[in-house]
Parts: sequence; structure tokens; C-alpha cells
Amino acid sequence: MDATDIKAAIQAQREPMQALFDQLRQDGLDEPGVSRDPYGAGEQRAHATVAKAAEALGLEITRDDAANLYMTLPGRDRSAPVLVIGSHLDSVPHGGNFDGAAGVLAGLATVAGLQRLGLTPECDIVVMGIRAEESVWFQVSYIGSRGSLGTLPDGALDVRRVDTGRTLASHMTECGGNPDALLAGSKHFPDPTKIRAYLELHIEQAPSLIEAGRSVAICTGIPGNFRFADAWIEGQHDHVGLPRRFRHDAAIAGAEFAIALDTLWADYDEQGIPMACTLGRFHTDPAAHGLTIVPGAFYFSLDVRAYDETVLAGLEDKVHRIIEGIEQRRGVRFHLGAKARAAVGLVDPAIKAGLEAAAADHHIPVLHIGSPASHDAAAFGAVGVPMGMIFVRNANGSHNPYEAMTIDDFLDGTLVLFQWVMRDLKNSIA
Amino acid sequence: MDATDIKAAIQAQREPMQALFDQLRQDGLDEPGVSRDPYGAGEQRAHATVAKAAEALGLEITRDDAANLYMTLPGRDRSAPVLVIGSHLDSVPHGGNFDGAAGVLAGLATVAGLQRLGLTPECDIVVMGIRAEESVWFQVSYIGSRGSLGTLPDGALDVRRVDTGRTLASHMTECGGNPDALLAGSKHFPDPTKIRAYLELHIEQAPSLIEAGRSVAICTGIPGNFRFADAWIEGQHDHVGLPRRFRHDAAIAGAEFAIALDTLWADYDEQGIPMACTLGRFHTDPAAHGLTIVPGAFYFSLDVRAYDETVLAGLEDKVHRIIEGIEQRRGVRFHLGAKARAAVGLVDPAIKAGLEAAAADHHIPVLHIGSPASHDAAAFGAVGVPMGMIFVRNANGSHNPYEAMTIDDFLDGTLVLFQWVMRDLKNSIA
Repeated sequence: MDATDIKAAIQAQREPMQALFDQLRQDGLDEPGVSRDPYGAGEQRAHATVAKAAEALGLEITRDDAANLYMTLPGRDRSAPVLVIGSHLDSVPHGGNFDGAAGVLAGLATVAGLQRLGLTPECDIVVMGIRAEESVWFQVSYIGSRGSLGTLPDGALDVRRVDTGRTLASHMTECGGNPDALLAGSKHFPDPTKIRAYLELHIEQAPSLIEAGRSVAICTGIPGNFRFADAWIEGQHDHVGLPRRFRHDAAIAGAEFAIALDTLWADYDEQGIPMACTLGRFHTDPAAHGLTIVPGAFYFSLDVRAYDETVLAGLEDKVHRIIEGIEQRRGVRFHLGAKARAAVGLVDPAIKAGLEAAAADHHIPVLHIGSPASHDAAAFGAVGVPMGMIFVRNANGSHNPYEAMTIDDFLDGTLVLFQWVMRDLKNSIA
Repeated sequence: MDATDIKAAIQAQREPMQALFDQLRQDGLDEPGVSRDPYGAGEQRAHATVAKAAEALGLEITRDDAANLYMTLPGRDRSAPVLVIGSHLDSVPHGGNFDGAAGVLAGLATVAGLQRLGLTPECDIVVMGIRAEESVWFQVSYIGSRGSLGTLPDGALDVRRVDTGRTLASHMTECGGNPDALLAGSKHFPDPTKIRAYLELHIEQAPSLIEAGRSVAICTGIPGNFRFADAWIEGQHDHVGLPRRFRHDAAIAGAEFAIALDTLWADYDEQGIPMACTLGRFHTDPAAHGLTIVPGAFYFSLDVRAYDETVLAGLEDKVHRIIEGIEQRRGVRFHLGAKARAAVGLVDPAIKAGLEAAAADHHIPVLHIGSPASHDAAAFGAVGVPMGMIFVRNANGSHNPYEAMTIDDFLDGTLVLFQWVMRDLKNSIA
């Protein structure tokens, strides 16, 4: 099998994959952009469309208690550890068409490529359509992948979707899941100990590839994070004319917090230590605020991420010290609320080297970047599954309607993935 | 008439005024606190209660096209320039019972005191219950007083109350006003050229009197202000993992703006130049913000106030320079929207001296303070009416449910006002 045949097998997926992307966009249309609400109507339509495409390829369709979708190309040895290629099928509200879905379609294209070449791998190849990765909805990360792996945090099934106010358990049941079985420790599919590797292709959510003029990047790591989804600052509501020395302005305290974090980030940038810090919600109380009232309460969410657990622990310590300083100076009180924590996702060195070799086989120049975002791959890595990721060039960022990945770049990334599968399975593919 | 008789005439108002305050609180009850919504049900009830009390005193009741309430003790010469004692009867949502109302009741107590002493002044004394002073509702300041004086800004009748979405004209009509006549330049009552002086008693909205341990302050000036009620910052919505160098975070830009203003204020404080600066609304977009989205838009209101027109102009210039710097550094754009402007209110030196003498007559030690807040008195000052103000000690600030003025302090402030009337009218009172 030479490189030309391999490339042709992926190029042959251009039209079916373009049609599938178009159908998914139509399924999720919610102008501007698409909304594939997790465990809701939007995600359901995406699952149905993808499952239908998989059926057309003759794949086995199964689902687990978390309602994740498994589309399996059977191997010659059904008991051998499986290769999982997956990503998520939900989106943020009014998001783009590619964040998540591209990775699932890359899996389908890979399987279709093998079929086109008439190859049957030794082990099963499982294309996984993962549920509820976008934490903006339930404010819990990796719900689908951790549900499948048995690592959902305590209480996760009771959290409520921010728009509907209904629990994850309720949404999950509605979409064919079985939260009671998940709680009881249902047998998971695939069993983490029976996963040979987890591979995920995803659009890049920053413009590093655009900046570098390349189509594909190999992931060097996935950030861990700590998050406070519902924090607030308690100050004192006062009259607009109150002299400065008497004020306990919660909004100014919030501003000082934001600028201290931004300054900290700039310092880390200068030292070359990658991290990110986002105050996604950052607001006075809509019911109480007004032109002539000094804000007595201020609300925010905080997400801090880094690629090293020690760095992350150091950042958390610094955040607390910043808060103590502001509380003392401004006579306000921070209420951070519940903390969520996601572990750093370490990329398997052999997979990373294999992906580099695969790209070289096809003369595709790659960038090496730490993932700007969190991904389900980290949940697999956290239970010891060797994992790797491929990023595809994408303009205008993600989590917005203006994501722009070209089908050419998608096929470049998918070719790297496919070539890696060919190399990885070369001793077992028949 | 000796000081003991004069003081007794005001002390006699303790019970009726306490009863009137209690009735007003009950009228406006909207836990926590009171809501006397301007040109709405809350303010209407307060006007009815106060008018009833004025009728019981035998005062003449009239209203103008802006639906302000005039309660007149006729003088011996009905054509002589009148003395106006007034304040507003509206409140912020869930505000306290005293902000505004105390000044109207002080006027009634003054008139009742004259009646008790059997005195008829040469000129009319007009107690004025002013409409819609609290700009949080219509985001326009001094609506009632400027309506009465014919100085409402263009377009003010078309602005909408933030809670109801209905225009000022519509609200005004509903409350017995005549916006068409106002627009046509109705004859105003009282004619500004026929006002001898405007006096206003108001609770202090900062704790300077508490800090100083005194009950009464004489106002040295009312701040002018410039305001941007509906400003916003245009950045770029992005993914939570986007590296810092690619971000155009509107919320961080807002935070930088807030801290720059706070630092500027601290500098002015150190130089002893009084000013104040408030970002009452300060928020990401509730429809778009979330834990994992870098905020692409940020909204705020700004109120900057000072006691000197030159200082105010300098501050406005500095605000624009701060904005330019942030726009350049962060690649965002500020949209300030419509600017509102209120002129500095200069206290009449003779009235101020007269109030000091009146306090000294009764051995009431006073503080001299610039008003922290804006007041209707400034609207009278702006058209050349000699004006003065008295502040009464009040705990817990204002514009909140916890305002706390004691009846003793109220009577101290009212006694200073009453003594000033006695001194001012001494040659004409019979």
C-alpha cells in the first residue's frame, strides 16, 4: 500500500464528509450559528444524522448508559483492545459547525478509508460520538466521556442545565440514557482497560495554525483547569455620590481581580509558561444595578488552565492570595462557591511520535502546540488510556458562529490520522 | 419671638411628621425597603398622602404640567416673589423612606411652625413635592424640577422607564401631567423669575455626619456630572483556551477602564479635589456570557461628578484618554452612546451664611460639606434662583432599604431651616 493509495482513500471522503457536515449544520441551525444542546434536541439530531451515516457504512451501532454513540468497524479479533477515534457532537449555544463534529467525522472517514482499501484491522475500531463536552451548559466538563469511563464526579447527575433548569439525569433519561445504572456503576463500553488508544481530531480554537500558515498541528498536551462557575463578591450597595473612602464597591473589586489575573498571565507568558485565564461571566446584578447605585454585589465565573499540575497548583495559590489582598484593601468578601477541577491531559509520547511520522509520510508540515482548550481526550488520558490529538487549522476561533475550517484542511488532518492508523495497525491489518 | 418659642414650634411637629413618615413608608412598602416609582403607582401614593396632610394644614394645592405638587401658604402680598421649600417624593427601587421625602416634610413642618406661631409671611411659601428626581428610572436627572422650570432637555419626554419600557410622556399623562403643554412651553409655576429662594433639606447620602458626630450639615455645592447611561465595549467572543496575545476580551478592557478611573479618583482624593466616579452597571451580556467563552461585549454605565466645571471638563478629557489607551492596547472599541450632562449647582453665599447663622442661633454645631449627590436644588440654581441645602445625618447611606435618619436629627435640620425662614422673612413676617 503506497502513500498515493492511502491519500486517495481519504480524498475519496471529500464529498460524503462535506455532505455530512452540511447536514449537521442544517440539523443544528440556530442563527447565528448552530446550537447542539447536550442531552437535548440539537445534540439528538446530530447523533441521529451521524448514526445514519455509520449505518450506511455498515458499522455496528451501540449506545451506553450515558447515551454516547459507538460506531464500530469489527476487527478480526473481537476480544482485542480496541482503538477509539472520537470527539463530541454537542456545541455551545450559537456555536460553529466544526467544534467536536469534525473529530467524529474524521473517525468515520478513517473507517471508510480502510473499507475503500479493503482492509480489516485485527482489533475493533470504534468511532465514538461523545455527549455533552461543552461545559457551558451543565458547567461540568467531559460529561459524556467521563460517563463512559465511570469517572463522572459525585453529584454531576444532579446539576442543572443552565437554560432549562432541569437535571443532567433528567436530560440523560430523555435521550435514552440510564443515569440510575451509571450511578450503580454500570458496565461501561468500552472498558478503559480494553482501549488500545484514543485518538481525537479537533479544530484548533486559537489562530496559531493561521499565524504559522500550516494546516495541521500535533497536540503536545491538554490543559488541566480549576474552575469556579458561580463565584461572587459581596460589597455594599451605596449611593452614587458616596466618597471613595466609604465605598465597598463589588464591581471595582471584581475589576481589580480581573486585572491582577491578567497581569499574572502576562508574567507567565513572558516566562514562557503556558496558561490561560478567563472570566466568562463578569457582571453586576441585573435586578439591582443601575446608573446611580454603587454595586454591592458582583458575579463571575473563573476558568484557569495550564499544562502542568504544579503550575496549576501554584496558580490556584496565587488566585487566593490576590483575593485576600483585595478583600483587605476594599472591605469586600469573595464567595467562590464550588470548585471544579480537571486533571492535565498528558499526550502519549509514542502516539505523538507516530503522528509526526504519519504527517512526514505525506509531507504535511505540522505545528506542535499545547491544546488551548480542554478535550474529552484528557478524560481518557486520566484513566491511563494512551491518547493523542490532531488539530486542524480554523479561522475565527471557536465557540462562535464564525468557525471556518476548510474541507482541504480537514482532509489533511484526517490523512495524518488515517496514516497513523495504517502505521499503528500495520502488523495486524489484513 | 425668642429661640425657645421657635424651637418649640418645630418640636411640636415631631408627632405629626413621624406619623407622616410612617404613612409614606406604608404607602411605598416594597420589601426590602420602599419603591416610589416616578410617574407611577408608588410616587402617586406619596403625592396623595402629602397632599392630604397639606390640605389638613389649610394650604392651597396646585399642580403643574409636569404633575409636580405645590402646597402654598399664602403670603400677605400674593404677587411678591415666593419662597420655595421642596424636594422629591420618588425613590429608587427598594430604596429608603427618607431620600427626598424628608425635604418635603421639612417644608410642611416649617409652614406648620409658622401657623403655630400665628405668623403670616409677606410672600407665599410654597412647599414643593417634586416628581422623578431619581435618574435610575428614566436615566434623566431632575425631571420634575426641570419640567417645572422649563429646562427639560430635548427628547426627555421620549425616554423610556427602564422597567416598564414606556415613555416619560406616557407615564406623565397617566399621572395627571400634560407633556404636550410642556413641549409647547407651558407657563410654569412657579415662574423662575418670581422665586425669592429655593431651600431643600435632604438626608446625607454619605456617612460624613456620622463620622463627625453631628446632626446637620450646610451644603457648600452640588456636583455637576457627565454620564454615559448605555455604554459598551466591543471586543471579540472567543474560546476559553485562546492564548492571551490573540484575545480582545471586552470584560478585561472594562476592568482596566474601571481600575484606571479608580486610580484617577484616588489621585484626586490625595490632591483634595472632590469628585466621584461610579460604574453602576458593569456587566457581560447575560444572553451570551458563559464559563467557557471569552466575553466579546461588555456593558456599563458611567457617572462622573465634581463641584467645579473646570474639574469636570478635565475629567471628561482624561476619561477619553484612558479609553484611547485601552482601545489601542487591547484591540477593542468603546461605544459610549449618548452623554448626559448636569451643571454644577452653586450654593448662594448669602443663603449659606444665613443657614450658618440660623444653626448658631440654636447652638447646633454644623458640618460644611459638598453634596455627595445631585439634587433638584441644582436645577433651580441653574436658572439663577438663589438656592441652599441642609443635610441631615443618616446611617447606612441611601438608595438602599437601610437608610436611617432619626426624628431628632430631622427636627434639628428642620429647625435650622425654620430659623432661616424666620431670619430671612423677619422684616416682612407679621
